[in-house]
Amino acid sequence: MNKLKWGMIGGGEGSQIGPAHRLGAGLDGLFEFKAGALDHRPSIGIKYGKSLGLGDRAYGSWQDMLAGETARSDQIDLVTIATPNSTHFEITRAFLNAGFNVLCEKPMTMTVEEGEEIVRISRSVGKICAVNYGYSGYSLVRHMKAMIARGDIGKIRLINAEFAHGHHADASDADNPRVRWRYDPLQAGVSAQFADCGIHALHMASFVSGQEITKLSADTVSCIETRELEDDAMVNFRMDGGAIGRLWTSSIAIGRQHGLGIQIFGEQGGLRWTQEHPNQLYYMPLNGRLQVIERGENNLSPEADRTSRVTIGHAEGMPLAFANIYSDLAEAINSVKEGREIDPAADLYPRAEDGLRSMAAVLAVSKSGLNSGIWLDARPPMFT
Amino acid sequence: MNKLKWGMIGGGEGSQIGPAHRLGAGLDGLFEFKAGALDHRPSIGIKYGKSLGLGDRAYGSWQDMLAGETARSDQIDLVTIATPNSTHFEITRAFLNAGFNVLCEKPMTMTVEEGEEIVRISRSVGKICAVNYGYSGYSLVRHMKAMIARGDIGKIRLINAEFAHGHHADASDADNPRVRWRYDPLQAGVSAQFADCGIHALHMASFVSGQEITKLSADTVSCIETRELEDDAMVNFRMDGGAIGRLWTSSIAIGRQHGLGIQIFGEQGGLRWTQEHPNQLYYMPLNGRLQVIERGENNLSPEADRTSRVTIGHAEGMPLAFANIYSDLAEAINSVKEGREIDPAADLYPRAEDGLRSMAAVLAVSKSGLNSGIWLDARPPMFT
Amino acid sequence: MNKLKWGMIGGGEGSQIGPAHRLGAGLDGLFEFKAGALDHRPSIGIKYGKSLGLGDRAYGSWQDMLAGETARSDQIDLVTIATPNSTHFEITRAFLNAGFNVLCEKPMTMTVEEGEEIVRISRSVGKICAVNYGYSGYSLVRHMKAMIARGDIGKIRLINAEFAHGHHADASDADNPRVRWRYDPLQAGVSAQFADCGIHALHMASFVSGQEITKLSADTVSCIETRELEDDAMVNFRMDGGAIGRLWTSSIAIGRQHGLGIQIFGEQGGLRWTQEHPNQLYYMPLNGRLQVIERGENNLSPEADRTSRVTIGHAEGMPLAFANIYSDLAEAINSVKEGREIDPAADLYPRAEDGLRSMAAVLAVSKSGLNSGIWLDARPPMFT
Amino acid sequence: MNKLKWGMIGGGEGSQIGPAHRLGAGLDGLFEFKAGALDHRPSIGIKYGKSLGLGDRAYGSWQDMLAGETARSDQIDLVTIATPNSTHFEITRAFLNAGFNVLCEKPMTMTVEEGEEIVRISRSVGKICAVNYGYSGYSLVRHMKAMIARGDIGKIRLINAEFAHGHHADASDADNPRVRWRYDPLQAGVSAQFADCGIHALHMASFVSGQEITKLSADTVSCIETRELEDDAMVNFRMDGGAIGRLWTSSIAIGRQHGLGIQIFGEQGGLRWTQEHPNQLYYMPLNGRLQVIERGENNLSPEADRTSRVTIGHAEGMPLAFANIYSDLAEAINSVKEGREIDPAADLYPRAEDGLRSMAAVLAVSKSGLNSGIWLDARPPMFT
Repeated sequence: MNKLKWGMIGGGEGSQIGPAHRLGAGLDGLFEFKAGALDHRPSIGIKYGKSLGLGDRAYGSWQDMLAGETARSDQIDLVTIATPNSTHFEITRAFLNAGFNVLCEKPMTMTVEEGEEIVRISRSVGKICAVNYGYSGYSLVRHMKAMIARGDIGKIRLINAEFAHGHHADASDADNPRVRWRYDPLQAGVSAQFADCGIHALHMASFVSGQEITKLSADTVSCIETRELEDDAMVNFRMDGGAIGRLWTSSIAIGRQHGLGIQIFGEQGGLRWTQEHPNQLYYMPLNGRLQVIERGENNLSPEADRTSRVTIGHAEGMPLAFANIYSDLAEAINSVKEGREIDPAADLYPRAEDGLRSMAAVLAVSKSGLNSGIWLDARPPMFT
Repeated sequence: MNKLKWGMIGGGEGSQIGPAHRLGAGLDGLFEFKAGALDHRPSIGIKYGKSLGLGDRAYGSWQDMLAGETARSDQIDLVTIATPNSTHFEITRAFLNAGFNVLCEKPMTMTVEEGEEIVRISRSVGKICAVNYGYSGYSLVRHMKAMIARGDIGKIRLINAEFAHGHHADASDADNPRVRWRYDPLQAGVSAQFADCGIHALHMASFVSGQEITKLSADTVSCIETRELEDDAMVNFRMDGGAIGRLWTSSIAIGRQHGLGIQIFGEQGGLRWTQEHPNQLYYMPLNGRLQVIERGENNLSPEADRTSRVTIGHAEGMPLAFANIYSDLAEAINSVKEGREIDPAADLYPRAEDGLRSMAAVLAVSKSGLNSGIWLDARPPMFT
Repeated sequence: MNKLKWGMIGGGEGSQIGPAHRLGAGLDGLFEFKAGALDHRPSIGIKYGKSLGLGDRAYGSWQDMLAGETARSDQIDLVTIATPNSTHFEITRAFLNAGFNVLCEKPMTMTVEEGEEIVRISRSVGKICAVNYGYSGYSLVRHMKAMIARGDIGKIRLINAEFAHGHHADASDADNPRVRWRYDPLQAGVSAQFADCGIHALHMASFVSGQEITKLSADTVSCIETRELEDDAMVNFRMDGGAIGRLWTSSIAIGRQHGLGIQIFGEQGGLRWTQEHPNQLYYMPLNGRLQVIERGENNLSPEADRTSRVTIGHAEGMPLAFANIYSDLAEAINSVKEGREIDPAADLYPRAEDGLRSMAAVLAVSKSGLNSGIWLDARPPMFT
Repeated sequence: MNKLKWGMIGGGEGSQIGPAHRLGAGLDGLFEFKAGALDHRPSIGIKYGKSLGLGDRAYGSWQDMLAGETARSDQIDLVTIATPNSTHFEITRAFLNAGFNVLCEKPMTMTVEEGEEIVRISRSVGKICAVNYGYSGYSLVRHMKAMIARGDIGKIRLINAEFAHGHHADASDADNPRVRWRYDPLQAGVSAQFADCGIHALHMASFVSGQEITKLSADTVSCIETRELEDDAMVNFRMDGGAIGRLWTSSIAIGRQHGLGIQIFGEQGGLRWTQEHPNQLYYMPLNGRLQVIERGENNLSPEADRTSRVTIGHAEGMPLAFANIYSDLAEAINSVKEGREIDPAADLYPRAEDGLRSMAAVLAVSKSGLNSGIWLDARPPMFT
């Protein structure tokens, strides 16, 4: 099988996200890194790109890259956009319009209106516009989704999701530029912790349940009082399949490291999973006994099997979850190239619609939080 | 030391709560079971009381017991009231007015007004009126309280408490009389799951923090739709010392057994504890590392030492927590008898004021839940 | 039901074991504390006994108590012996010969010969001679035994037991009298850590499997070199039903608190349990999935139900396990009094035979450890 | 930085180990896959190699590959040998003698004599001869080693290592060819479970402690009686720095998945780690409190920092540990190329000496197991 050709915008020298994407894209040997505009400073970006073996496909700007790749017959099959948040919309739009498949870092856009535009474009051009909710790539998250879809826990009654950490808990560190921008509305938008972390928990709730949020009520607080945006939020919500939702997110939860977790309770059973120990999934059938499902077990779902790489009992971690998103994208691209149906067990990457819904939810959380927790429609207008 | 004389109302043959109280009261040999009106059917109660060695202090009714004990010179030092909820108020009032020390099962009353009357009486008569929030007796819960009081985690920013179980999740079991009455407003009052379980989590938040709830907003739902009262609730609240609160309680959380737990985040550290593994307390100082505090460690607080019975590494469980409440009460009674100061490390039993505050919180949760989560004052009028 | 009359030898003021026994004996209200020789200093023992309400049955010596109780028509139904180890044999023998039921603290004797004598006496007089391996009282330990007996895991292949703690790891504390005597052959006998802790793990292996040790090989070491007896031992063994055994015990395992645990592997499944979290039992059927059995679950064995006191999800701890031994003994005594069969689910208290077998195993471990791990018969002569 | 050129022998289509090595070698972009003899069937191997992009460096045999690469100026910098065990020696010897750096799958050889020859050759040619004990690549395993080396737990007293799984527990599966060969002396050599799994635990004991095994005593058993080689072994050992060792390995431990774990107890503290949850390390200083060290924490050792890829709280798993071995090798190769000192924090890959020592230990375990656990020298002759 020929490798797909892959390019990247952003993710320059010293960034965290650049190596993570290169690792994820390269892990299974499905993508070959061929082009990039890795830095907003042209000469630095070109130099770094060349050092990574991009040759003359190391570009000085995304505009140059768009022009250069468009002109090639061997153009990239997928471009990843990992630039500052405020530029995601413009670049994604441009590449989609030029007919490229796109994987955009979250948030996909800064406003709901922009999000709707991206969805419309992606639909009209018939190209992939994926958004990087990477935690949905974990094998046992995929298995939860499959279990729920096949009815193992019956109709879902309630989902309790959380994403709590304590890495912004030091008040004396609040002026640290690395932290401060996140709580500055001019740079971060209308929400800090919910937009940054809570949204992953919300996407997971939606991903595993197959339901979408319809309305919500939020209690948002700034535990460090100098912050203009929230560092802790509790969100109650409702989903279109009838599920009740609770979602807690915090950045001041000292003692918690990366507390993304989910509990789903249905009429016939319950499920529990946490990101920090992702290779175990806790399942109890109604009136039954708690079972520990292990990643890599025999006879799990096709969705789990496809995303499990090493034998049972060996830990798999976040980089492999991330790679699973790229693996989905490779299947999506190759199935089109080969004129065949996509493997349904791979057709699970997060899409522009997810990016849009997230943006609408962020907006609703912010508004509800500013208005004593009033219940608000959390859907983007185009989906109401 | 002479044993204190103890009596009980309710807790007849076949009840769960009767043996639990007798175990708790007797565990340390501080109380001797001397009198009881154990059943609402006089002859059955007398017979059962005699079989437990009460002799002629096995009474046929609480009224008889009140009269009989009042007339004795060796009257009981403490009476425990473990009758059906709707009778707590009347019996508690009568015994307090007659000058007895009382330990009342929760809920102390069915209304806020009754609760205020009990508080006023208990204050005027100068007798103990304790309410049985037994989970506050765990040794490491006491230690959390002591750590917070001495400033180990600094000013509290946020508390996240929960009490989730799945024992009422079977819809086909909803007509089971053992379950049904809990969701029937005529029998249970205005709240089911919050009043039954959530209130323990709220008391714990208050107990360990030393703060009281001021206002709240609730999202209450009946996941099993035939129920008139909630089987799941999410409550956001504020406390008088500035703490933010989140509290989740559920009875449909399949896979959870008895999920009472608390996380407390301060400016200088965080704490985490769960009832199902009560002998470990997780503590992280700001910018430090997670530590596992073990019950029975050297150099814990006097509050922890006093309530720890076996050496480190041996599990202690709920019955011993319960006994610690009785141990507190014995110290309170004996310190009065002996005309000395009470040991401050023992002066921690839940009081009529806690019972009253709980009732006000239950009422506010119910009202807020019925009104789209509007924020309401959660305090009883006498404390506003 | 009338309470049984209970007496105690040893366990004077300030001891740990005295209150533990009184708590265990009294917890269920089955025994009433009626007589005692609580201290080797007669006047102190009598004074303390009177303070505990023993009146003229507070004796100055065990000999006085033996004489006094023998002369009474309302003599005690059971005597607990909690004196220094070297006196167990003499006192146990005397009380058995006088027709009393005895619960002796471990070790039952200091030599195998003495142990055999106790077994012979207990058989000839037809009285109970129990030995306090209290960990066998945990509800889920009882359930493991029941599961194995009914074949849930098939024929046992291998047992891996351990009891590791780190409380004697401080070399600078080695001269502390509280620690030093344990490693002094003159006071402790031929073994320290194995005799003190390892023997509990061995008893548990035997208890749950229903098999007895036949031979063993030991590697014993003194990690703190000034010690004459071992502070760490690894024992390989064989059992009479074909099971292979491994047993590790240590007192220098810093970071371990009270690490008594057992894993049992059969042809059809595996089981795992640890004392520090005694309310969960891990079970995997062959080719199945790990299950978490909770104490207090519905539909466990009669042995588990009988020894479970509070509802599922509430922790139960060591003091209740201890009380279960007393509950067994009450049933044994009462069934004789009432001329009926003993409840087989209660007929599980450790016996003189267990005390004897332990002594033989201790001796074999010591000898094998001194002889490069040579395999030795671990059975007492009378059982070969 | 130019990528290093990498080749592979074995690991053909359908093998598990081939993709694992390609993933590990490629993960950080340090190696480029350039040459291979991937199958013992020449045409199949060449075809598969071409499909992986090897072009004319897809060889039909290791001999062809040796000749072909030797003749090139751009020859591979490292060759990985992942062929059947019995061929490791011959191929490793040939490539070392031709001046290539080698990473050999374990076991490096089938006999001690062969192992000694490899060690001598690797020393004389001055090339890397690494052996793939991949678990030593975990970041927190590296940190344990660093903590011990800098004295955090003082002089080591005792190490308890284990590697227990239950994947060969089904007697009815014993004739399955996938399982059977492992217990067949003709194919597997003198040991099954110890050679396959136990040796990883032993290497880890040696790796983290910096000590080497000197002598051992083993109890080896075949729980499934038709097996000629052991499926469970308990090994007691001694190390050259004075540490006592215990090591348990099993393949019939139903309920255990991949139970590689280690506990190390020193004079000043204890450490505990398990492979199934590799991102936490438990540490207790003497007379202190248990701490949970997280992978990715600030201020860990250089050895930990170098091998940690994603931020704290994100799980990292086995494939990244594996990649760390390749990362070490890249540093070793590049430091030679660049004529500079190797980064000492990277100089940790397992070597031919480790492969040799393992072979000597396997032999000693087998002999001791057949001789009632007699203590034997576990060192290869050249290191005595």
